[in-house]
Parts: sequence; C-alpha cells; structure tokens
Amino acid sequence: MEKFLLDRLLRRLRQGGVKIRYWDGDERVYGPARPYLTIHYKSPAAVRGVIKNLSLGLGEGYMNGLIDFDGPIAKLIQLGDENTAAVAGFSLKALTSRPQRNHKSAQARQIQHHYDLGNDFYRLWLDRSLTYSCAYFATPADDLEAAQQHKLDHVLRKLQLQSGQRLLDIGSGWGGLLIAAAQRYGATGLGITLSREQLAGARQAAAKAGVADRVTFELMNYQDLAATSQRFDRIVSVGMYEHVGRHNHASYFAAVDRLLADGGLTVLHTISQQQELPNDPWIDRYIFPGGYLPTIAGTVAYATNHNFRLLDYENLRLHYALTLEAWLNRFESHSSQIKAMYDERFVRMWRFYLSVSAGSFRYGGLDLSQFVFSKGRRNDLPLTRDFLYQPDHEAL
Amino acid sequence: MEKFLLDRLLRRLRQGGVKIRYWDGDERVYGPARPYLTIHYKSPAAVRGVIKNLSLGLGEGYMNGLIDFDGPIAKLIQLGDENTAAVAGFSLKALTSRPQRNHKSAQARQIQHHYDLGNDFYRLWLDRSLTYSCAYFATPADDLEAAQQHKLDHVLRKLQLQSGQRLLDIGSGWGGLLIAAAQRYGATGLGITLSREQLAGARQAAAKAGVADRVTFELMNYQDLAATSQRFDRIVSVGMYEHVGRHNHASYFAAVDRLLADGGLTVLHTISQQQELPNDPWIDRYIFPGGYLPTIAGTVAYATNHNFRLLDYENLRLHYALTLEAWLNRFESHSSQIKAMYDERFVRMWRFYLSVSAGSFRYGGLDLSQFVFSKGRRNDLPLTRDFLYQPDHEAL
Repeated sequence: MEKFLLDRLLRRLRQGGVKIRYWDGDERVYGPARPYLTIHYKSPAAVRGVIKNLSLGLGEGYMNGLIDFDGPIAKLIQLGDENTAAVAGFSLKALTSRPQRNHKSAQARQIQHHYDLGNDFYRLWLDRSLTYSCAYFATPADDLEAAQQHKLDHVLRKLQLQSGQRLLDIGSGWGGLLIAAAQRYGATGLGITLSREQLAGARQAAAKAGVADRVTFELMNYQDLAATSQRFDRIVSVGMYEHVGRHNHASYFAAVDRLLADGGLTVLHTISQQQELPNDPWIDRYIFPGGYLPTIAGTVAYATNHNFRLLDYENLRLHYALTLEAWLNRFESHSSQIKAMYDERFVRMWRFYLSVSAGSFRYGGLDLSQFVFSKGRRNDLPLTRDFLYQPDHEAL
Repeated sequence: MEKFLLDRLLRRLRQGGVKIRYWDGDERVYGPARPYLTIHYKSPAAVRGVIKNLSLGLGEGYMNGLIDFDGPIAKLIQLGDENTAAVAGFSLKALTSRPQRNHKSAQARQIQHHYDLGNDFYRLWLDRSLTYSCAYFATPADDLEAAQQHKLDHVLRKLQLQSGQRLLDIGSGWGGLLIAAAQRYGATGLGITLSREQLAGARQAAAKAGVADRVTFELMNYQDLAATSQRFDRIVSVGMYEHVGRHNHASYFAAVDRLLADGGLTVLHTISQQQELPNDPWIDRYIFPGGYLPTIAGTVAYATNHNFRLLDYENLRLHYALTLEAWLNRFESHSSQIKAMYDERFVRMWRFYLSVSAGSFRYGGLDLSQFVFSKGRRNDLPLTRDFLYQPDHEAL
C-alpha cells in the first residue's frame, strides 16, 4: 500500500529524477532525468510519514534513521522546486504554521534553542571569527575564512562607517562584525544578543582583539533597547530579522527608527523568500522555532512606512549556497567528534538542516538580501556605488 | 480676505522660510529660516487658486502669469516637504485623482501629448542622444552628454548584455539605448514607442549610426507585442513604467514574462515614490496625463508574483536632480527660441515642470529606481557586482 501511494505521487515528476530503494530491496526510478539521489526507505512507516507531511516526514525519517540518502540531500530541494505539481500531491496541511506571536520571553527561548548549543560546537565548523551568516565570495574557490572577513568589510562599507561613529549590531552573534568595525574602521559600538553563549564568546573575542574598551555586548532584546535613550549613527543586523517573527516585522523598523540618528544608515542582511509562504514545519520544529522568512517587497514596505529610504539592494543567494556547502564540508570532517558531543540523531539532524538550506539557496525559493536604508533623505552621500568596489577592501 | 487666509496657513511653517509679495506691494516673511524664495501674487484670484488647490493653484497661477517666483522654484518642494502639517491646511480634495484605467487607446494619446511636442524642441535642451531620462553622474560636475552615455553603459552592463543577444527596449524614446547596445555591445534589438515623433527620430538616428540593420523601431504597445510570438534575451525599460498607470503594473510584468526568454535579465528604470500617493494634479493635467508613480515595494511585489528574482536595486535619486537641473539650465538658455516656437505660457509651464521635478528628487519623496530581475533563477551569473565598476565602462 505505501509503495503504491508513493508510486502514484512520484509518477507525476516532470523534471529531474530520483531513485527509491525500499526496505525489501525493491528499487524504482522516477522522472525523465538521471536520478539526482537515492532515497532509501527502511520501513513502510517512513513512507507513511512522508506522504503525511513531506518536510516533516523526510526530516524526521532521516534523523531517526528510517530514511537514508545516497547522493546530495540538497538535491531534494531541486527536485521539489522543479515539480511543484507533484509536491502538491503530498498532504501539505501541516505546512500551515500556527499563528506566530513572538513575545519577548518566547524570543529568548527560541534563540537559545539554537545558539546556545555550545561555542565549542560552532567552533568546529564555522570560520575563526564565528560568523554564522552568509559570507561574500569573490570567486567560488575562496576560502571561508577570507570570504567571511570580506563579508564583514562589504557590510561595513555599505554602512559607510566612519571613524568615531557609534554602531549598533542587533543580533551580534560572536561579535565578529563589531570587532572588525572597531579594528578596521575606528568605530565604537554596542552588540545585543539573546544568546548567553554568544554573549560570553563575543566578550571574550573583543578582549582578545584588544577592543573591549570600544565595543560592548549585552544580553538584550532590541525592543528593550529602543525603550532607552540610546542613539546610534549606524545600525546593522545580520541574520537576526529571520527570528523576529511575522508579527514583529513592522515593529522592528519602528525600533530601528527610534534607535538611529536622523540621516543615519542601516544595513539589513537577511534571508528572504520569494513569496509569502508558511514556515517549513521541520525547520520550525527542530532548527529555528518561531522564525519567519520575510519577503523582499514586505521588508521594503515596512521600512518605507517608517521613512527609511532604500538606497541599495543586493541579492547574495549563491553566496549563501557556497557558505552552507563550506559549513557542511567542515561539519562532515568533524562528524565523529560531534557525534561524541551529542549523538547520532543530532548529527543527522544537523546534516539535513545544512543540506536542505544549501539546496534552498541554490535550487529553491530563498534569497539572501542585503538592504541599505537611510533614515530620511541624505543628500551628501556618494553618488555611485564605486566606493564598495575599491581594490583595497579594508581601507575605506 | 485672501491675505488673511494665506497668512493663517503660512504661520504654520515650522521649518524653512518664504517671502510673500502681494499685488499691492505688501511683503511678509514666514518661517524660522531665511526665505528660500519669494512668491509674488499678482492678484487675489491667484491666492484663491492656491488655497483651493496648492499644486494646481501654484502651477496654473505661474503658467498664466498671475504668480511669479524670485529664487529657485524647486525650493517650493523643500518647503512643502519640511512642513507637511502646514501643507495639510490647504484643501487637498482635488489631489485625489480620478480612477485610472489606461486603456491602450488612451495610452497612445497620453504619450503623444508629451513626446510628440516636436523633436526640434527636445533637441534644444536634451543631450545629443536625446536621452530623456535620468543620467548617471560620476561627479556632480560631469557634463550631461557624458553622464547620459555613462547611464546607457550602466544600464547595459546591468543587463549583462552579450554580443549577438536580442534586446527589447519598451519605451525606446529616440533610440539612444538600443543604438549604444548595437554599437558597443554587438546586440540586435527592437524598440517600441507610442510616439510618432520618437519613432521617426529613432529610425533616423539608427540609420545615421549605421546600425539600422541591427536595431528596428516600431510604433507599438508592449501589450500588443506580448501577444505575438516574439521573444528576447534581454528586456529593458527606461522611464516608461511611470506611464502604464496604476491599473497596469501587474500586467506589465505579465507581458515581460511572456516576452523574455527563461533565465533572461530585465532592467526596469523608473521614477518611484516613497509612499502610495495620488498623482499630483498639475502634473497630471498639463505634463503627464495618465501617469502614475509606482512604489518600490509594489514593483517588487508585482515582479516576484511573476517569478522574477530581484538581483539588484540602485537608487539614483540625486542623479535625477542633477539631470533635471542640467535640462533646466539648457532650457533657460534657449527660452526665447522656445517662446518663439510655442508661447510664453508654454515656457512657464515647462520651467515649472522641470523645476518642481528637480525639487521633488532633491528635497521630496521621489526616487529614481533601477531594478535588475532575472526570469527565474540563474546560477551562472557573476557572484558580485564588481563587473559594473570596471574602469573601462565600454568594454564589457
């Protein structure tokens, strides 16, 4: 019965291809092209899970060892994207996510779920600056370390950061961006995070870099900071907006409006999705509870409602595919160590997350969006974007 | 009575300043700052017109010689932008524009109203290529001729135009962009316009440039072209989207979707407004009937609904202020000749249009937006925007 149902669904494939291997050794190939990968179902229950909910069924089946893949997991995304009609045949009911209200207390829990896994874990597969967001590659062959430093400079250049200016980093992670801003641009600043592990790591890194007198880090929600009298010349947020939740997109810009000096610049670096879609239920349950991926149009609408003027938008979609692929490689080279720190299920969960994320940028509907806004009009900024593309990326 | 009413309204100025001179020699100064300009009311009727409808009253009053200005007319926009509460005191009822339905026959009339004024007229004050849209200035001191050629290259580079590719220019004006595409990038192409004068001028210019075998021009609506089987590798539209009307914003992208090859790139260069606002009634009545200025967010939303992926957005707001200021200077240096071709009222109308437009970019809510979209995903494009900023702008 399970085979029969899956067979009916997979016969709808119009592009690409996939091989299915069943618990009894039975193998079937679907689609007009050479199979991208093999999905190995080890039990009828695994098939039932996938038919019931494609995303949860594949993710949980893999985590629990009821499904294996031969070939790149990322290609699942390509197959899905090329065959939306076939995908629609699977039950998508559970894809409608519950109403989201990310209150402040929930936000802290949601952030800690992911980012408090332990700095030792992230040190194994992130770059040395622990920059846990899309890097910037001059070429696909760039080393991750260089690409992350290049990204920090690309963002700080977009901010047109000048010596002596005060920079706020909302969602400051392990502090790499603020430390670079202090070291290479002479800025001072504040970083806020909801992760205790990140806070400790960032303070340590700032001290080690000798800039602890110029950049400080606090465990604080941006909404609470906006209620204080603090004001900044520049505000940056890298990979945080994905966490604020659908309900808070407008109020995020209200907070930035309060925190930013008139005429100040702000850079928003965020994953975005092409269309307004519900959360992926597996990602929401296991990886980023409470997250929501904004659309580009919605983000611009919320920003312009608060008198932010869009100066520049850049889509770095393929840079995030390259970043995730680099992370996945590093993760795999430490997988036995990570298994010892956690367990096999954790390793499989994390491999599935990194893989489908890479696939979603390379083959799916996700973009990496960098927006530059000014608060109100600024008539004294450079006329062109040439300044972003000077040969020496460190000397602004 | 007129003086009393105007006095009550102008006492609300909170920023900037203006001097009012009345028909009887009476002078009053309003606002906390040095007056930006003097408004000279030559009759009580002129004041009544302004109180009744600020935009129509100022524009018609000036055209008809009932109002004069000492100082830059563009500063009216700055004063208005700085004093939105005071502006709200004027009756804005007529600002609510009538429902717009730009049917094809109406569109042709609307376009001909403006662009069929005569090529001799436009030759007096545009650059030699007759590029009637925002130029691209490396520095504010750039010559208009150089800045327009630089703009054509900037747009053609954003299109990543390659030799042998077929380019469609929707709203091709006097043909400058397609001629540059053929001459400097080896492209072939089609330009469509609804202006007979532009059509004749473009064909003449292509012949003179020796590229008439590679680029052709037709009097045609983009909707009619989309109904044919023609397809293009690249589509560009510069300064046309402002004319399609609020009602056609979605169908514009449907047409581009039909006309563009899969994976093709399209550049949309358009004026946009910060917020969704009704048309300015004076501009709508005298300059651009049926136009509507899109918002950035709305444009992205319509595009993404048709599976266009936003790759790049650049705001060239101050470039359009510089362009309009250059046009105004050239216009003024030929004003007696233009008066002989038309009449004094036409000169005043056109001066007011160029002036308030320059002011709206420099001091107001208008932006000049360049969007780059791909039709669907493209994984083989350059990773970064460095290619736009190579020293030699002509050799791609």
